[in-house]
Order: sequence, then structure tokens, then C-alpha cells
Amino acid sequence: MGIYLDWAATSIPDHEVSRMVYEKSLEIFGNPSSLHTAGISARKLLDESRKRAAKAIGVKSENIIFTSGGTESNNIALFSLITKKIKGSIISTNMEHPSVFEPLKTAEALGFKIIRIDPDKNGIIDPEKIIEQLTAETMMVSVMHVNNETGAIQPVEEIGRMIKQYSAKTGKRIIYHCDGVQAAGKIKIDLEKSCIDLYSASAHKISGPRGCGLIYCRKKILPLYAGGGQESGIRPGTENTPAVYGFSLALENYSAGIDENMKKAGLLCSRLLDRLSQVTGCRLLPHERKPFDRRFSPYIVSFCIGKVPSEVMTRVLSGRGYFISAGAACSSLKKSESRTLKSMRIDKTEASSAVRVSIGPGTSAEDIDGFCKALEEESVKLLTVYG
Amino acid sequence: MGIYLDWAATSIPDHEVSRMVYEKSLEIFGNPSSLHTAGISARKLLDESRKRAAKAIGVKSENIIFTSGGTESNNIALFSLITKKIKGSIISTNMEHPSVFEPLKTAEALGFKIIRIDPDKNGIIDPEKIIEQLTAETMMVSVMHVNNETGAIQPVEEIGRMIKQYSAKTGKRIIYHCDGVQAAGKIKIDLEKSCIDLYSASAHKISGPRGCGLIYCRKKILPLYAGGGQESGIRPGTENTPAVYGFSLALENYSAGIDENMKKAGLLCSRLLDRLSQVTGCRLLPHERKPFDRRFSPYIVSFCIGKVPSEVMTRVLSGRGYFISAGAACSSLKKSESRTLKSMRIDKTEASSAVRVSIGPGTSAEDIDGFCKALEEESVKLLTVYG
Repeated sequence: MGIYLDWAATSIPDHEVSRMVYEKSLEIFGNPSSLHTAGISARKLLDESRKRAAKAIGVKSENIIFTSGGTESNNIALFSLITKKIKGSIISTNMEHPSVFEPLKTAEALGFKIIRIDPDKNGIIDPEKIIEQLTAETMMVSVMHVNNETGAIQPVEEIGRMIKQYSAKTGKRIIYHCDGVQAAGKIKIDLEKSCIDLYSASAHKISGPRGCGLIYCRKKILPLYAGGGQESGIRPGTENTPAVYGFSLALENYSAGIDENMKKAGLLCSRLLDRLSQVTGCRLLPHERKPFDRRFSPYIVSFCIGKVPSEVMTRVLSGRGYFISAGAACSSLKKSESRTLKSMRIDKTEASSAVRVSIGPGTSAEDIDGFCKALEEESVKLLTVYG
Repeated sequence: MGIYLDWAATSIPDHEVSRMVYEKSLEIFGNPSSLHTAGISARKLLDESRKRAAKAIGVKSENIIFTSGGTESNNIALFSLITKKIKGSIISTNMEHPSVFEPLKTAEALGFKIIRIDPDKNGIIDPEKIIEQLTAETMMVSVMHVNNETGAIQPVEEIGRMIKQYSAKTGKRIIYHCDGVQAAGKIKIDLEKSCIDLYSASAHKISGPRGCGLIYCRKKILPLYAGGGQESGIRPGTENTPAVYGFSLALENYSAGIDENMKKAGLLCSRLLDRLSQVTGCRLLPHERKPFDRRFSPYIVSFCIGKVPSEVMTRVLSGRGYFISAGAACSSLKKSESRTLKSMRIDKTEASSAVRVSIGPGTSAEDIDGFCKALEEESVKLLTVYG
């Protein structure tokens, strides 16, 4: 039906994983809370899946809480503070995903002080800028691992170590959350060594089932909502056993191939950056992004073509059979300004022309070449209209 | 593998619906927020599914918000008040599901006054008892439609009409929520005529996919959590399009057959009640439940056998290949007292022996007969131990 280059919005499902989930959903359908054989089988599948997921990301299985997705995981992290009587400060950034940025507004309305740090012109946060904001009032730091628009990898490990040093020195307990939705299974990280307390991930970004996510909880937190006590009480509701099973398989697959995939994506990304440098009117976002730059996820590339509006370019390329994104999918239907690009001091005209290409295991060199050829042809035409 | 009589915990998936969801998940995998063809197809599937679900339950499609399940739907309803500056009172019952009962405790801790009404000895709420608690401070009334332990159908339509009369007389705006998780697709109701503002339903209770629910919102409410603005902002996160599609199909199937299924279930239920009356040591819960009693859902029957503990009976019958529940599945793993039975003034010994049989479209008369035969054999043996 077309060449899919929008893997950061959602990935093409792994057909083998989908088939296994489908078959398992018919075979193991019991409620994991039931005491009979059907329930016990479901509980066993849930436990095995938790172990598989934990092993894939290198953490203890008791620290994995399954959720309905990345948005819920991020909300669980942020809202864990909201019921606290003492309202301190939360340090975050201006380029977080709405599922972090919006709950922070709620927290602000409830009396928390929110400190939002800008990245540099490359869209990368300086750890020092976070650390210098730490005070006795700081309750949480929340920094995304990989930005969903530019692919910029944030120095979350360094920030984690620096927070730990601060805590050791002052005795101040600070919860450190990272939104790992665009990173889990793709960008290597040692969560324990990085002193990350809470880490969010989503299944559908790594070819797993829709409607499933997880939050790694190294510290015990208060739940977002209440019910039958499932998932250590942090995420009640009958467990989505088949989806959790599928997520664990997807995490295992992606994690097992993480180095090889990274290498392949690095080559494709550099090929894309090289081809884009020859496309009429093309400007990379950030401007200075270079091939094989380890500060960026090779899975995500953003650029603009002159003043051609994002939506126009996205639709025209869709007509040519190439599916890319006008900024982040989560905000594509609302024509709001990109906070990420604004925080990088990218000018408004460029920001409103920004498009995103994101690749995955199904992407080939031919896809990149075909895309850049179509892009060049359409850019030349569209630039005569949009200058 | 056995005879499944625990449909109220979770239903056996409809194999045709499961297959359609599986196939659709591979075909329509785009993010509904994406502007390209893959996104547009997903948006179309989501819209069609919303219309199908709305039609099945006889409401407008713009009033349907899809969620990750019944627990989340109930939490969205309850927590919509929690961020309000003015803390009034919420009237509910002592036999709500934990996904209503627990958020009410949170609301109480935040300063709301919670009034919890007891049902009569049959487990049915007297509408007058709700209405006499209405005051200028009342912000919400939340009453479940069908009790998950006894099957008692609550007079939610009558309560709705009486709240409406009160509102018309006093000008006081009261939000009326019903937890319909054990009722949707099974027990007929006209939500609009019943003046219900919020109604929760779950897919996996009606042979649909796990991890999907909905909340009917006739009134605009504040969201539980925040993100990319999906589902009218009330339930953000990439939509679980395949599950929503499956839920709409399941709702359509169940709703289309609602009368016929009810008749069949009525016959099976009466057969069960008749057979149980001959089982040694068996006592129905509530004691006075009669065959063809329209005050009870025919899909759920509770009883106890002398002093045989629920867990023992459940496990022994599981060994015989009959899967029933020790009370509600959601609390089976925690050996806590049943609030529902306590509120009906059922004594502790009987309550700790309570088991639940719940049936579905896959249940046959032979299943009921086989179950009662096994139950009689095991009861005679167990009563020699447990008296």
C-alpha cells in the first residue's frame, strides 16, 4: 500500500508476534485473578511475560508494572506526586511529549512549581542546567530519553548520576523519571546504573500490540487510579495478558537485535541525511545534524523544505505512497506550534514546515532512495508555490 | 480443557471477533492521528467502530469515549470530580466494585463527603434511600447496574428519573454515574431515558478483546489524565484501534441478541437454581433468590455450601474441570471479606463460603447439569470435613 516511514508514530506490527498473541488470546483467556485452572494459566503467562520483559531491559521483574501504554505510564509517573500534601518543585524540559508536559500543567495548577529547561540549538539538554535547579524543594526530575520529533538523545544517564551525587551529598530524595517511549528496545541504556527510578515504555512503538505499555518502578510510588489491586496496586484492572505477552516478545526481539538494528539504522539514517543534503530547499532540524552523530537516534530524522507547510508535504508524499509525519503524530491533528522546535530556537517558518521521517526494522535502502527521489520531485514543484 | 462458568470474571473470547481483530490489526496499523493514508484508514476504522458501538447501546457516537477497560472507565468517572475546588458529597453504595469503591476512598481523603448506602437483604438498593440523601452539596451519584457477586440488578433507571426530578425542582446539577461493566450488552437499558450521565462498560466481559472499555459521557467531564488530546481529551494515548474495533463488534453481537440471550440465560439460570436447591448443604446468596426473578441478572448466581471455604470449593471444582469463582475474580487473590455480602447482612460464615457461577453464550444445559452433579458429589465429601 505504500512505504511506511512513520515508525515513531506507530510501528508496523511484527506479524509473528501478532499471530502468537492472537493464538495465545484464544488459548489462555482466563482472568489472572481467578483461582481455577484457566486463571492459573493466565497468571503463569503474565508472570513469564513480566520476566521476559524485565530480562529484555535488564531489570528485576518485580519492578515492571504493565499499563495500557506510554501515555498512561508517563501519567502514572507524574501523578504519583500529585496526591502528596507537600507541593515541591518538578524539574523537566520544554520539549517533553504531551503525556508528560500536560500532567505537569495539572501539577502546576495544583500548586507544584514546575521548572522547564530549554535544550541547546541541537535539542539536547545540558545536564548542568538540570542539576543547578536542584533544591531542598525538588521532588522529581523528568527528562525524556529520545525526543520524538528530532531524535535527540538526552544525557539521561549523566543526569541520573548527577542527581544521585546530589542526593548522596544532601540526603534529599528525588524521584527521577525518564520517558523512554521512543528509546526502549532501540537505544541501549542501563536503567539501574543510570539511577533512573521510573522509566516509561510502549509496545506499539516496537512492533508489539497496541494498548500496552510498562513503567519500570525502582521506587514504590502512589497509583494514578484505584481498583482491584492488580499490578502491585499501581495499575488496577483485569490484566491485558495477551498484549502483555506480545509486548514481552517484542521487547525481547528488539533488545536481542539492539546493536545490529542500531548499526543498520545508522547506515540508513546516514544515507537519508546524505540524500537530503541534495534535495532542493531541504534544511535539517536541527541544522547541524551530521551523519553518524551519536547524539541522535538514527531512527528519527526531521527536516523542512523551504516554506512548504508540513501538512501539505505530508499529504503530497502520502499521495506518492510515502508515509511520513507532519511533526509528532500525537499533535498532527492539532495545528499547534512544535514546542520542541521552539525550545531549540528554530524559527516559526521552518517549524511550520517541519516533517519527520522515522524508520524501523522494515525499512530498506531502496525505501530511502525512493523516498528522496519522490521528495526531490515534489519539492521542486511545491517550492514554486510556497517559495 | 474444562467447563467455563466464570464469565463475569472474563468471558471466553468470540473466535470470529478475535480473528477479525487480528486480521484488522495487520491491515490497519496506522496511528489515527497521522495525516497519511495509513493514518486516515485507522481514523476511519476508529470512527466506524465508535458509530457501531454507539448504535449497539443506543446513544450518540460523540458521547462514546474509548478507554483501556472498565476499571479505567470507572476511575475516569469518579476522578472527574477530584480536581474540583469545591468538595461536595458523592452518594454511592457499599457494594460497588473496587474500581468505584477505592477511588471514592481517595475522594474522601481529599475532602469529599462519601455517603455509602446499604442494599436490602436481596442486595438491591432502595431508590428512596439514595434520593433522601440528595442535598445542595451533592455532586455525584454512582450506583452499579448489575452487582458482580450476586447479579442483583439495581433500579438505576428509577434512580435516574428521581435524580432528574430533584434537579428540575432544585436547579441542582448532579452527575449520575453507573458502572455497567456486568450489564452492558446483557441487560437492556435506555441510557438517555434513564438520565444516566456516565456509564462504564468493558469489552472482555462480552467476548471482546482484553484491555478495552468505554465510558458513555452525556455530560462533559474533566479527564483523569493528560496527553495528546485523543478521545476528546478525556482519554489521551494512541487509540487501541484494533481492540476498539473488536469491542464494537462484540457489543453489536451481544446487543443484537440481547433478548434471545436473556431468554436462554433465564432458562439456564432457573435450571441451575432448581438443581442447586437439591444440592446437599447449598444455600443461595441472597437466600430468597427464585427462578425467573427479574430483579437478578440470569448470568450470575451466588451460593454457599455449608461452611466449605470458597477457595477450597473453587479449587476442588477446578480439579473436576468446572471453573467457577470464589467471589469476584478481582478480589479472589486477596482473602478479604465480601463487602457486597456484608452489606446484605449475610453472616460471615456464609460469606466466606460464597462461590459464584456466571454463564455466557457458550454455556449449555449439559454444562449446568454436569456442574451440579460434580458439585453434589464434592459437597457431600467436603461437608464431612467442613461441617
